[in-house]
Parts: sequence; C-alpha cells; structure tokens
Amino acid sequence: MKRDLKALVAQMTLEEKAGMCSGLDFWRLKGVERLGIPSIMVTDGPHGLRKQQGNSDHLGLFESVPATCFPSAAGMASSWDRELLQQVGKALGEECQAEDVAVLLGPGANIKRSPLCGRNFEYFSEDPYLSSEMAASHIQGVQSEGVGTSLKHFAVNNQEHRRMTVDAIVDERTLREIYLASFEGAVKKAQPWTVMSSYNKINGAYASENEWLLTNILKEEWGHEGIVVTDWGANNERVAGLTAGNELEMPGNGGVGDKQIIEAVQSGKLSEEALDRAVERLLRIIFMSVDSKKPNASYNQAEHHQLARKVAAESMVLLKNEAGLLPLGKQRKLAVIGAFAEKPRYQGGGSSHIRPTQIDQPLAELRKLAGDSTEIVYAQGYAIDSDENDPALLDEAKQAAGAAEAVIIFAGLPDRYESEGYDRTHLRMPANQEQLIEAIAEVQSNVIVVLMNGSPIEMPWIERAQAVLEAYLGGQAVGGAIADLLFGKSNPSGKLAETFPQKLSDNPSFLNFPGEGDRVEYREGIFVGYRYYDTKQVEPLFPFGHGLSYTSFDYSDVKLSSKQIRDNEELEVQVTVTNTGERAGKETVQLYVRDVESSVNRPSKELKGFAKVALEPGQSETVTIKLDKRAFAYYNVQLGDWHVETGDFELLIGRSSADIVLTETVHVTSTTVVPLIVHRNTTIGDLLNDPRKAEIAQTLLKQFEQGLGMSAEAASSEDGMGDMFAAMMKFMPLRNLTAFSQGKFSEEMLDSLITQLNTTN
Amino acid sequence: MKRDLKALVAQMTLEEKAGMCSGLDFWRLKGVERLGIPSIMVTDGPHGLRKQQGNSDHLGLFESVPATCFPSAAGMASSWDRELLQQVGKALGEECQAEDVAVLLGPGANIKRSPLCGRNFEYFSEDPYLSSEMAASHIQGVQSEGVGTSLKHFAVNNQEHRRMTVDAIVDERTLREIYLASFEGAVKKAQPWTVMSSYNKINGAYASENEWLLTNILKEEWGHEGIVVTDWGANNERVAGLTAGNELEMPGNGGVGDKQIIEAVQSGKLSEEALDRAVERLLRIIFMSVDSKKPNASYNQAEHHQLARKVAAESMVLLKNEAGLLPLGKQRKLAVIGAFAEKPRYQGGGSSHIRPTQIDQPLAELRKLAGDSTEIVYAQGYAIDSDENDPALLDEAKQAAGAAEAVIIFAGLPDRYESEGYDRTHLRMPANQEQLIEAIAEVQSNVIVVLMNGSPIEMPWIERAQAVLEAYLGGQAVGGAIADLLFGKSNPSGKLAETFPQKLSDNPSFLNFPGEGDRVEYREGIFVGYRYYDTKQVEPLFPFGHGLSYTSFDYSDVKLSSKQIRDNEELEVQVTVTNTGERAGKETVQLYVRDVESSVNRPSKELKGFAKVALEPGQSETVTIKLDKRAFAYYNVQLGDWHVETGDFELLIGRSSADIVLTETVHVTSTTVVPLIVHRNTTIGDLLNDPRKAEIAQTLLKQFEQGLGMSAEAASSEDGMGDMFAAMMKFMPLRNLTAFSQGKFSEEMLDSLITQLNTTN
Repeated sequence: MKRDLKALVAQMTLEEKAGMCSGLDFWRLKGVERLGIPSIMVTDGPHGLRKQQGNSDHLGLFESVPATCFPSAAGMASSWDRELLQQVGKALGEECQAEDVAVLLGPGANIKRSPLCGRNFEYFSEDPYLSSEMAASHIQGVQSEGVGTSLKHFAVNNQEHRRMTVDAIVDERTLREIYLASFEGAVKKAQPWTVMSSYNKINGAYASENEWLLTNILKEEWGHEGIVVTDWGANNERVAGLTAGNELEMPGNGGVGDKQIIEAVQSGKLSEEALDRAVERLLRIIFMSVDSKKPNASYNQAEHHQLARKVAAESMVLLKNEAGLLPLGKQRKLAVIGAFAEKPRYQGGGSSHIRPTQIDQPLAELRKLAGDSTEIVYAQGYAIDSDENDPALLDEAKQAAGAAEAVIIFAGLPDRYESEGYDRTHLRMPANQEQLIEAIAEVQSNVIVVLMNGSPIEMPWIERAQAVLEAYLGGQAVGGAIADLLFGKSNPSGKLAETFPQKLSDNPSFLNFPGEGDRVEYREGIFVGYRYYDTKQVEPLFPFGHGLSYTSFDYSDVKLSSKQIRDNEELEVQVTVTNTGERAGKETVQLYVRDVESSVNRPSKELKGFAKVALEPGQSETVTIKLDKRAFAYYNVQLGDWHVETGDFELLIGRSSADIVLTETVHVTSTTVVPLIVHRNTTIGDLLNDPRKAEIAQTLLKQFEQGLGMSAEAASSEDGMGDMFAAMMKFMPLRNLTAFSQGKFSEEMLDSLITQLNTTN
Repeated sequence: MKRDLKALVAQMTLEEKAGMCSGLDFWRLKGVERLGIPSIMVTDGPHGLRKQQGNSDHLGLFESVPATCFPSAAGMASSWDRELLQQVGKALGEECQAEDVAVLLGPGANIKRSPLCGRNFEYFSEDPYLSSEMAASHIQGVQSEGVGTSLKHFAVNNQEHRRMTVDAIVDERTLREIYLASFEGAVKKAQPWTVMSSYNKINGAYASENEWLLTNILKEEWGHEGIVVTDWGANNERVAGLTAGNELEMPGNGGVGDKQIIEAVQSGKLSEEALDRAVERLLRIIFMSVDSKKPNASYNQAEHHQLARKVAAESMVLLKNEAGLLPLGKQRKLAVIGAFAEKPRYQGGGSSHIRPTQIDQPLAELRKLAGDSTEIVYAQGYAIDSDENDPALLDEAKQAAGAAEAVIIFAGLPDRYESEGYDRTHLRMPANQEQLIEAIAEVQSNVIVVLMNGSPIEMPWIERAQAVLEAYLGGQAVGGAIADLLFGKSNPSGKLAETFPQKLSDNPSFLNFPGEGDRVEYREGIFVGYRYYDTKQVEPLFPFGHGLSYTSFDYSDVKLSSKQIRDNEELEVQVTVTNTGERAGKETVQLYVRDVESSVNRPSKELKGFAKVALEPGQSETVTIKLDKRAFAYYNVQLGDWHVETGDFELLIGRSSADIVLTETVHVTSTTVVPLIVHRNTTIGDLLNDPRKAEIAQTLLKQFEQGLGMSAEAASSEDGMGDMFAAMMKFMPLRNLTAFSQGKFSEEMLDSLITQLNTTN
C-alpha cells in the first residue's frame, strides 16, 4: 500500500515524533493511535524466535514461547550454503508471522577476531566475505516472509568483555576490509529493515552515536534504507545518537530520551528536519510490517524440526577421520560416552537462548539408527556442571569403552564456558572431559569424538582420537543430525568458517585481547583468522575451510574468461569438480585471491568466492565464480576508495585455505590514476619509480653524483659500499640536494624543481 | 679550566652564533678565531676510528687513517661485560686523542626490532636494559680519555629502508619501555657529550625537530647536558630543529641553515635567548674537548690488537656443541673449509667501516695454535661474491672434509647481504654456503660451523652441524679469537643479546616491517624480541641470553634482602654460582622479572639485571643484583610516569631467557595513588573493585537488581544465565541505571550520584 509518509510526519506533534525514536517498553515500538500508526513488536533471534510472554524482567532474559531452535550461526556458516541459510530465514519468518513479530533481531555479522569471544557462536566467520554472504542469505530468507531483520552488532563488537564501554581502536583499512566488509555485503545485497548499533565505541565514538559509521558509511555509501536501532541499552547520549543516524533507542527509556530530543529541537541543537527524516524512516519500516502482515499465520512445527535436522547435518564439520573409521555400520557393539549424549548442548547462552519445540537426544537418535544388529551401551563419563574428574564415572566409561568395537565420546563446552556477556579466558574443554578422552583412548583404539561447542577449542588429545566431528551448537535436532552423519545417512559437507589454532597464543589478537581497561587495540590489523596463520606461517590445528567427506572430489579444467582484465571488468572463473568416490556428497569449492606483488601489506590469500555443489558418485559439474574489482582491491585510505594495483593476481582454488589444488594467474590493470605529489621529502627513488617523473629524476641523480665528486668506479669499489651508495641515493629526500651540496643547490632552486615536478603529471 | 661561557656568547655576533649551529664541512665544527673558539673535529665510530684524510667526498664514505677495528656492537653486547666495554671505549678514546679527534660518533643504542635491519650489527640488543648498560659502559670508557661520544641514532631508527623519510608510528608506552629506555639508561649513567638525532620521523615529527623528544625528554626529564647533533643529512627545517633542541646540524650546509636562523631571530620567529642557550651548550662541549686534549698523544697498536683479540673471544657465542666436540685438540687432521677462513668478514658496511691496523686470518691463526701434531687442510668451498654453487670448489671441499677427523666450516653473510643503507629481505645465508654445509655433512660427521654475520640467520642445516660458533663481526683480531676458542685457549662465555628465530615470519615485526611507503607502524608494541617469543610461546632457534661454555655452572642459594618492599625501596637479590666443570670459565647470571598479575599487557618476563663472574673449577661466587622501582614498573601513559601495580613479582634467575634455574617471589607495594574519576560510563564492576567506592556500588547494585524485578533465584536459574547476568552487571555503565529503569532513575539522580562517588576518594 502506497502511503504519503511525509504528509503523515507533518501531522505529528513534536512530542509524538520524539516518542517514535524510542521503544514503548522492552520489545515494542510506540504507535500513534490517532494517526493509525500501530505499535509493532521485535524479538530476539537469530537462530530461533525468543518472544517473551509478558514483561517479566527489564533485561528481557527469561521465559519465551516455544520456537524452532536452528543451529547457531557458527554451525550454519560451516554449511557455506546460501540457499540453506535462506530456507532457515524463511522458516524463521514464518514463525514470526505466526507470533505477530515484526522484526527478528539478527543475524550477527561480527567477525570472529578472537576465539575467546563469548558470543562467537552467534557469529558466522573470521572471513568477511563468507560472513556477509551468510548474513545476506539469512536476511533474504526472513524478509521474504514480510518480516524484518536487524543486522547486528554494528560494528566492531568482537568481545563481550566490557562491551558497553570498551573503545575498539582500529585503523580504517582494517575496518573497511574486515570488520565493516562483513556488514557491507549484507546491507547492499539484502537491505535488512534494521541495523543494530553495537554497545562499544569505535575509535573514540560510541557506535550508537558514530555519524561516520551510521550516516556516512551505512546510509550514504552503502545506501541503507531502513533504520538503525540501538542494541538494548547501547544508547549513550540520545541527541548525539539521533544526530548520528541512530533512529531508534531500545528498550524504552521512560521518556528520558524523548525529553532530550524535544529540548534539543526547541533549543535549535537538533533541526526538526533531522527528526522528521528519522521518523519517516521509522514509519516506513512500521508500515512495511503492517503491509506484509499475514493474518492468522501459522507454521508446521514438525516440518521446521525436519529442516533443523537437515541444516544441522550440513552445519557439522568432519575434522578428522582416520582409516575410514566413519561412517559407522559394521560394528556390533558401540559405546556412547559423555553426558552431552543425553543432554546435548545445542544453543548458546544470552539473548539468543530460546525455548525449543522439542529436543532430539543424540543417544536416542543413535539407537534409532543403529538398528537391532548393533548394541549401544552408554556411560555418562563426566558431570557437565563440574570440571572435576569423577573416578566412578570414569571407571564405568572405560569399562563400556573397552568392551565395545568403537566408542563415540560426546564432549564440548558447558554453558558456563561460553555465553553472551563474558568471554572465555582459555580454549580448553573442562579438564574432566579431556581426561576422559585420554582414559578411553587407553582401552579403545577406535575413538570418535563428537564436539558440542560454539567456538574453537584446543585439542591436546587430538592424536588419541581417530575421528572428530565438530557439531558446534546444532539446534534442537542436533541428535538426529549427528546420528545421520555418524551412520552415513548424511554425508558430512561442512567446512570450517574459522581457524582452529593449535593453542590460544597462536591467535593474532592474543597480545591485544580483550584490551586494557576500556581500550582494545586491533593491532593485528587486517591479519585476522587465516589471513594471519597463512601469512605468518603459523600451522593451525585445522585450517579455515577444512572439512572432510565420506567421498572424494577431484578438481580440473580451470578456465578464466580472460587472462587480462581492467579493474572495472568482471572475471569469470570456471572449474570442474568430480565426485570420485562411492557416495553422493557435497563439496564447497573455495576461491582465494593473492596479489603477487603489492606496495602495501596484503595477506597471503583472501577468500573471494565459493560455490557448493552436490554430486552423485562419478558425477561432474562445472562451477562458475564471478570476481569483480573488490576481489583484487585493498582499501586505499589516501584515495578513500578501493584500489587495485596493476599486476598479476593468483587465483587459488582449493578444498580449504591450506589445500589449494589449482592455481591460475590473471593480470589486472588499474583504471585509477594515483597522483604523486612531490614535496621536499619525496625521495629520488620514488621519482625514479614513477614513469611521469623518472626522466627528470635521472638527470637530477647524475648532477648530484657529479656534485659529490663521486665517480661510478669509486661508488662500486670495496665491501658493498656500492650497494650502500645506491641505497642512499634511492632513499634520499629532495631536501638533501641542498644539504649535501654545501649550499650550491639553494632552497629556491629546490622549490622551483618541486614546482616543475608537480606540473609533469 | 673554568670559563664564563655566557660572557663569551654575549661577545658573539648573531652571524657567529648562527654559524656555530652547523658544521664547517663534513667533519669539523666552526670556530671563531677572534674569540679563541677552536674548530673541533668529529669522526665516525663506534667500534673503531674512521678519520678521513682530506675531504675526498661529500658523503664521507671513503679512505680513512688506520685504526684498531674492534668487534662490532652485536658481538660486544654478547659479552654482557660492562668492564670490557669500558676497556674498549678507553682504547678508542686513546686513538682519538692520538688522531686529534674530539668526538667519536657512537655508540648506537637502537633496539633490534627486526633481524632484517641492515645496521643491526652496529646495535647492541633487542633488550633495552642490556643495550643501555653496554652503551653506558662504552661511553664511560671513551669519555674517560677526554673524548666525547655521540649516542645514536636518537631515536626509533630501527630500519635502513627509507630511513630519511619514514615515519615510525609507536605508542608512548612502547617508546618509553623499549625504544627510549635503551637511550635513557646510557644518558643518565654516562652523560654522552653529544646525542645524535636520527633521520626518521617519530609519530609525525622528524627526530631532528622533535621537541618532545629532544627537549622534554632528553634535556628536561633525563637531564642531558651536552648537545644534540643531527645525523649527517638528518636536518629537515633548520629553525624547527634548533627550536626543538637540536643544536648542531651536520655536515656543514654552506650557509643555508645559518641564514635561516639569522632571519628567524630577526623576524622574531626564534628568540635570541634560545639561540644563545644552544650556543652555550655547543661552547661547553667544544671547551670540554679543548680542556681534555692530550698533546702528542699516541697509542700502542699491538696492545690494542691484543685487546681486540680478547674482546672478540668474549663476544662470540657457542650456540651448539654436541657430545663435547669442542674444544678441539685430539684430532690429528682437521679440514678448514670456506672462503671466510682466508678472508674473514669482520666488520660491517657503511659509516662504521674502518681501515684496520692489521687483520688476523682465521686459517693462519688456527694453524698457529694447532701445532705440529695436527695437520690442517684448507678448501675454499664457495666464492664469497656469488650465491651460485661452484661444483669444483664443492668437490674439493668434500674431499678435504672426508679425509679429516673433523671439519671447521666458515660461513656467514657477505658484505652485500648486510650494510648500513638498506635492509635484508630474508634471513638466509647465500645458497652456496648452505649447500656446502649440507654436502660436507654427508661425508663428515664432526661438523663445526663458524658464523660471520652481523645479525641472525635461519639455519635450515642446523641438524647437520654438531657445533656452531657465532663469531658475529669480530673485528681485526677475529682470526686469533676464533682459534683461541676452538682450541680451548679461551672458554666461550658469550650469550646472545638477541633471539635467533627459526624463521623470519616468527619475528614480531614481520607483518609490519619495513612498513608501507613512508609509514611504519610498530604494532607489536612492547613485544620485541624475547618479550614476544616468550609471551606468544613461539619456540626460537636460539633464545635470548643463550650461550654455551666448555665448563658447567650451578646456581644456588637465592636470597632476597626482603620478601616485601615498597616501590620506592631497593631490593637486593643474591645468588651463588659455582663452576662445576673442569675448566675456568665465565658465566653471566641473568635476572628476569615477571609481574604475576597485571591490569595491562606485560611480557612473560623482562631482563632487569645481570652479572658476569669468572670462576676457576670448583670455585663459587655470590653475585648481588640490585633492583629498583623500574625493575617492576611499566610506563603508565595516563599517569605520565612509571608505575608499579601492587602485587607479587617473580624473580627468575637463569642461564638464558629460556633456561630459568631459580625463582623467588617478592611482594611490591605501590606508593602511588591512582585516582578513579567516576563518570557516566564508569562500570559498576570498576566501582566494586575500588575499595574507596565499593560500598556505594554494592548498594547501587542491589537497588538496581530490585528495580529490575530480578530475584537472585531467577538470575541463577538455567543454562549459565546467572553467569551472564553477573557479567552484565559488572560491565554495566552507570548511565544505564537510567536507561534500564524506564526513567525512574533520572539523569539528575545519576549526576548527583557521580558527584557523590567522586568525593569519596
């Protein structure tokens, strides 16, 4: 329905307009009854709907209506499957329609800077491209049902520690290439109805009142048409926030912020036009919700549960599988060990914690699939709520394991180890679980470990396990999905969306996480995740993009649409993938780009494309991945733009970031002219390197050498002195033409030379 | 002789005063004949005198008078011997007196940030304490002879790449604790007559015109009484330099800078008082030189050569010695292989390159010491000026090696690999030398490698060598010193003053060296050298402080003067060292300090004291190391001062940074009150942590929880929600008392609460 929102705004009083800029209560926006503006509701997400009944507490933490609990983002990103994420989004949208929810708060597109971040399970990846693709797909799915999303937490909210006051100090190139890029792609591709400003400061200014971030970048550069809502309690100074482009404060402030807005308009500190623009954006979203409301909507819980099971299976990553121990099938007697087999950890703590419609227990699901010919014995092994060994539980587990043909150990992180609100301080599992694995390995050589955790752990026991399945936090159908994978009903296809380091101190943020007091410096810069491990040559435990299958895939026939492009042209990369094993399976083809030579620091490689294909045994498919300028560019802070340096770029196609199978090279030519402004401290070498200035520089150099009484012969005489002389000349600033000439080359001559050089562009 | 310098300055014309602020030519200062102010001469150093005859070129690079070439600083620092450095300084001072040189330009106290820096051989260490102790001793030695020094290159000149224009971006804490600390100790302890300002910029301002650096820190905080001289050609804008505290521009500028100074005084841009102060400092140094001039001074070249031999032996580090292969003595037939045995590399390239009085050839010296009963065959093995293998040389070498009982391979870096003026780009030796070692190891199992290089190399061949002696650049007596050590006439006692990494990418500066264009960011901060390897748990090839001996030492009986001190009290640490082997030897006891718990990032350990002892077999000695506040402090940027956080500190006593033998703990109590200024974004947790505010905060927290309708029971209910709630409260800024109270807690109430909290200090 077409509405004249400007006209509507014109009818509103100042008080009504100010009121629209904050919530009615914890979950609802204000309406204006006399003008037919309804009050809409938002609820937490993102992997399930957390709609609270009533208003039991002011932090919005407790009891909610039942909803389907899908795997959390850490798992879903491991699917590398855009379509799957859209399906999940669509299902979530249906549930929102059924529950009369206008906006689902999520997804989270923050980059996993450190594996310690307590909220990593809610985020997709350490890589901005993968993260933005997953986020965009999720948003597209939800919004296809006429329900809004809130892309969060914008931006640079990469830790829970002191999240409401910490100031993240990040250089602009790193922001652009890593932390903002993850949001940028999702905003441009999927236009989330809302974007949620985060708690923290960025380079000194709270995200919720950061005009550069919310207006210059989000609204103007990226073209975001929706509204910005504060994270709950993220508002600092309301008028500053509104001025910066933060339209909505949540939760409701009981009138405090509204009053400040009214006073600011009355005193002229805030223009009424600015307020009107904010209200118009708010009304647009409110009426988008009104117009897409589906009356009497409902959804099929069983179907959504089935979807959750499928998604969970696609989200799990087979990290290790020696001697084809998995899939199971031949064994007559299996031992299942570990309390998580009975009480799985399937979602994280905090605002995303929902009340599932049902929960699949892994042990029960394994028993269902094992059938009658395979006996499954179970032992608890450890207590979830303790780190202490229980000798009785351990003995029982060893006995069960010793008597079986293979053992499946369920291990991972208890709720208290990771949650919204605080960060981890180490990467270990509880000691009793690690000891259990070591003890079981003493009595059983076929050890399968199934991990339930929201982010990477150290695995000092890795050599004791023949197979490891990373189940992440698999949602309410986690049990069925694990059973499907272990028994081969599904074929694992997940690939890690993050690096598993060997030890915490290997992580690039280690020396600067979580910062000192209210200041955290992102000193590792663009070297986040595999960009660091690759470039620094630090061997990870499992690399980014890694994940095994029960079948095998060959890569062949790379084709480029051209071997030479200009940076404003698109490149098509084709590669053929063949299933060379005996089971149907899915493979994610990963395309990384490497700048062969660059004047700035660049990572060894960066993910710039991927495609997932499903193949029957023997089947081949040719996938096409398109690359545009951004695939080759870095963010040039001086230009204030993305820039491609003319030269060769390697296209690295692989099964993971560490397993590159095919490489091709494309030459990209820049269409941007970067000016060289000459000044008294421009070096002679820089002039020689610039085709526009080289001739003058060459003459200069000769004059200078003659002036010094320096013969070519003398300069190359003894002990590397020639090399040193050449280096001195190269690095010599123009000002030293004067200094080293004993005044013969005057300051006036220098000035006129510089003028001359600056006119020959 | 007492002079009235102020009166002398008063007699000078403006032109004469301006003239004093730059050189007469490349090496001499101006004098004023009519006032009896002489022109004094300075020359390059620091490990030997480079006095040029005549003025053959304007860069001052060529032929100089003969002088004793001592080991370069990288080697000398490995002696960890303050007295030895003083002896070398004294000898250098004698040579300066003999050559009528007033000031010897050196020593260099720059920190070895990256092993790639082309000038590392001229610098002492990656550790500021060791570096400053070595520099101070060197200065004390030279100046004891009435000759000045120039502590250089002040400051943060840690690379040759673009050194004249590069801007080093370093946070203040890192500057204070690492890069400036290396100069600070030397200035305070030894008062160098001059300090040399470096070429580069620091945080945007050229060192030569950096008032914060030259005036606030050097002159005012540290109390430097001498003058600052530019590095040759480091002047940017002369008036800005003089204003910043840079008294002398070198080399002479032919009047350009003088004219600028005169104009600035005339226009009022520069006060004549400031110029007078600079000239007074200059005159003070000139007359110090005049007054300490020793007429007809001479020195004994043979004695200085003997000193050079002793120093070289103390400077070399025995890195590896399997199965006691060294010292030699039993073998009847030895093969000496490698061109460096005939033509040793014993000094670096650039301004420190001198003309030695004589050169000891290693091969000849080995033959001398071997005596008649041991035959020594020699093969060249490789060409120094090539990286290419020469099959004929290789064959010859293999034949010689195969026929001997042990082989000594001389290898290292040719001049072209490292020099002033440019940096290395990798850490490898020439390929032909690496191949030689591999090839020899195939035919000979007793392989001794002697290395001649100015800074660390990668050693992919390390497992092929049974013994490795790091000779660094050993000066003109290098050959004799190596022979002394290999045959056991001297016992190795050098310890590495820098980490040898396994590979270049392990270095902390790897991702940020040498920077992009004219900007290099020191993102590793304080984590330089072993501070990084230790804290990040990166295993080095050889750790800082490592060095073997032909005897063995036991450590026992650590005693602290007190188990508890206040930060303004001194602590004495005593430890007994016993020579438990069968040869006399020297041991350097190293004392590191670790802050057990800190609110800021601190390295795993930091060197805070060391002592070198000479012990006969069976002999014991108790060494005493004193620690003051600085041993426990970090630089607190907010306080603008060094600060010790109250708590336990471990005192780690060891043979190297990686071989800690004894540990004691001392409790240090701070005498500084750090104020807590409360504002709207102070967190509740910070208040609870502060004994002065905790009570109010506790009350606040209770009220807030009640206001939220949050019962303790509910908060600790399910799935870690209790932990999350606790974390949320801890990290909650005061402003959210308002936001989450729906306005019941007003902004006015918040303001008054903050006022109340700020009055309870």
